[in-house]
Amino acid sequence: MAKLYVIGIGPGDPELLTLKAVRIIKETPVICVPKGREEGSSLALSIVEKAVSLKGKEIIEAHFPMRKTKIQGPGSGGQGPGDLPLDPGPWPPDPDNDLDAKWDQAAQAILSKLSNGKNVAFLTLGDPAIYSTFYYLYDKLIELCPEPDMEIVPGVSSINLSAARAKISLGLADEKIAILPANYMGDLRSALETFDTVVLMKVHKVFDQVLELLKEMRLLDKAAYVCRAGMEDEKIFKDISSVRPEDLNYFSMVIVRK
Amino acid sequence: MAKLYVIGIGPGDPELLTLKAVRIIKETPVICVPKGREEGSSLALSIVEKAVSLKGKEIIEAHFPMRKTKIQGPGSGGQGPGDLPLDPGPWPPDPDNDLDAKWDQAAQAILSKLSNGKNVAFLTLGDPAIYSTFYYLYDKLIELCPEPDMEIVPGVSSINLSAARAKISLGLADEKIAILPANYMGDLRSALETFDTVVLMKVHKVFDQVLELLKEMRLLDKAAYVCRAGMEDEKIFKDISSVRPEDLNYFSMVIVRK
Repeated sequence: MAKLYVIGIGPGDPELLTLKAVRIIKETPVICVPKGREEGSSLALSIVEKAVSLKGKEIIEAHFPMRKTKIQGPGSGGQGPGDLPLDPGPWPPDPDNDLDAKWDQAAQAILSKLSNGKNVAFLTLGDPAIYSTFYYLYDKLIELCPEPDMEIVPGVSSINLSAARAKISLGLADEKIAILPANYMGDLRSALETFDTVVLMKVHKVFDQVLELLKEMRLLDKAAYVCRAGMEDEKIFKDISSVRPEDLNYFSMVIVRK
Repeated sequence: MAKLYVIGIGPGDPELLTLKAVRIIKETPVICVPKGREEGSSLALSIVEKAVSLKGKEIIEAHFPMRKTKIQGPGSGGQGPGDLPLDPGPWPPDPDNDLDAKWDQAAQAILSKLSNGKNVAFLTLGDPAIYSTFYYLYDKLIELCPEPDMEIVPGVSSINLSAARAKISLGLADEKIAILPANYMGDLRSALETFDTVVLMKVHKVFDQVLELLKEMRLLDKAAYVCRAGMEDEKIFKDISSVRPEDLNYFSMVIVRK
């Protein structure tokens, strides 16, 4: 069996790939990338291609038809590449559904390369531990092959990038950090009371409610809104009440630092 | 005024530097590194030197005499480079103390280079937003120069590396993550009840209490202990009750994933 590398390629800027990611991608003959739509091009691949030549490599594009999350309120039109593999269905997956079958196919494709002696690099946006779909695949992999030779290469996550762009520390000394990815309105008040820093992802869906709560808790001036961090149309709001509906989109987060 | 770069150099492996970090360090004539003991060598510098030649560069070693945190219980002897700038005194700093004066000195040294037209790269372990001492310096900097030309370059944090080494996802889909850096015993039960994943840093100080609580909450089999991630003597325990006193040290964390 050859080796599987799982590589966090960072949040989008090809320069935020690590030296290790670049070296391993160069050395590995088979590259596997997740892909949201069968016709779409892979974002991960297009980022990596700007830093490493992929000429001559075998590319496995694993098709994971992501569920479209219901978008409420304004901003739903401006999601950008909203077919990113960030919302791959319920967890644990239902073994009867089509999505689970797709993960199974991908795992089998990878294992077939590995057993033919070819190393495989699976690319994932950001860091593999932070909301990466890789761990859905991992469960399938170890079902089929309990101890694969596998190395996970950490990467820069979009949370670290957003904090860097807004020049905000997420924590100093003994400060506690909470990361809330979605569906958090029920827990938000308590998290804001207990934690020094709260990171709210996918905030475009509930922005008005978040704004209302922060106002009520007198935390408005402690919050920043970072939209499309590191992209050409990045926007940073230190006054989040000035965020307009057209500034709300999938690639956005609110950081509240008390 | 020239430009200040604040560069997350990752958790220790020189290969986990980003391409951007390497490029900027190459291009920048002045490098500033924090240093815990006046006689000690800078860990950040020794990591970077393995990836980039620093020949001919001007090095500012900013001396921050870190408070030694009182260590309780076993393992206190084996801290490794325990003079890492990870516990730089109380926050907010007391303007009368020596530590504050040291930050002030460092800020002035950097600003003097910048006003002489020399770009400066400040190196920080891990990611600048995650418990980096840089933000202590930043407060001093903007006191002296309210709008410095400054770019923060995110890096791989030790949390991401530890998760990678233990092959643990910190979060999938809607799962909530809590990061507790120290002094968390009072909040731990509630965090374990509310969050899907809880990351406990500096766990060597309170390991026995953490173990006891996890046992009581029937979460022992959901926890992993990662010690000195990415270093030569790295150890990973999926059964944390088998951790021995000599395995406890500063560079360790427990990840509880429910």
